[in-house]
Amino acid sequence: MRTEIRLSGRGGQGLILAGIVLAEACGVYEEKEVVQTQSYGPEARGGASRAEVVISDQKIRYPRAYDPDILVALSQPAFDRFAPQMKKEGLIFADESNVHTDRKDVILIPFSDTARTEIGREVVANIVMLGALSATTRIVELQSLKQAVQHRMRKVFHEMNLAALDAGFKLGTRIWKKRSC
Amino acid sequence: MRTEIRLSGRGGQGLILAGIVLAEACGVYEEKEVVQTQSYGPEARGGASRAEVVISDQKIRYPRAYDPDILVALSQPAFDRFAPQMKKEGLIFADESNVHTDRKDVILIPFSDTARTEIGREVVANIVMLGALSATTRIVELQSLKQAVQHRMRKVFHEMNLAALDAGFKLGTRIWKKRSC
Repeated sequence: MRTEIRLSGRGGQGLILAGIVLAEACGVYEEKEVVQTQSYGPEARGGASRAEVVISDQKIRYPRAYDPDILVALSQPAFDRFAPQMKKEGLIFADESNVHTDRKDVILIPFSDTARTEIGREVVANIVMLGALSATTRIVELQSLKQAVQHRMRKVFHEMNLAALDAGFKLGTRIWKKRSC
Repeated sequence: MRTEIRLSGRGGQGLILAGIVLAEACGVYEEKEVVQTQSYGPEARGGASRAEVVISDQKIRYPRAYDPDILVALSQPAFDRFAPQMKKEGLIFADESNVHTDRKDVILIPFSDTARTEIGREVVANIVMLGALSATTRIVELQSLKQAVQHRMRKVFHEMNLAALDAGFKLGTRIWKKRSC
């Protein structure tokens, strides 16, 4: 069982941090094998930034996400670049206010709106997104994300980011239910 | 031309952050191909934490450091675990106060002592280490590290970390000269 996740957006949206928190949540608190990667090169300098997480119950031989199961896109350029590469059965989550698309299979979620209105800081949209991922997929438990946030971030940021995880989890649950009806 | 670097130590020594800063310095400000990786698994839970950076002038097919050219060890368990895996011509840098060894080929550098005495915060030993790496190896320019620190960290931390880079660079230059005489 191997799951590949690609988190994408623009620089400054905290995708590397989100990748690290997700990897630590699964790898340290859920005892899976996890590799987390970021790549820099001519592509990365084009504007679309990404972090990748590969989760497995076995030793990971190839650590890059070459055929992602889950794509998150927080910006239009990242969506435009990575969404077409996704396999048919892959899940695509995109930020509702930053990404515009006609594709019906894309799950639009107001990550940044929720971060702004519920937490008061759009900068935690990345953490709201992780909470939502936990609710909509089975890749990680909310509790493990909370432990990773507390371990990875300085104390002064705990309250805000734990609230962001909770807000994202609720958001994900709500949207998932709506889609399933 | 491919260079593999393994940064190792214990949790809390900021090795992932150091890996990201180094990767961004080379990949964004020096336009090389770079992949930065952290792995979590039964091994990682054993206590020795690590971040890996692979730098190349060509597309990187295999992103893990399977045969590192450079090892940095900031803790004894990390040194004991990773130093024996190094090839003969590899460079090993270890923290002078945290690592004890009889091996003459290991380059002991007071990263944490310098961080504590010159910057007043041992927590920036990881950044002192990057400055020293820039002085002792040709993998990255000090200026690129400074740009990456400024881009990657919040403004309130810039002054301290830029000073840590400078202190590390001076330290590396001094030690390198001493060894070369």
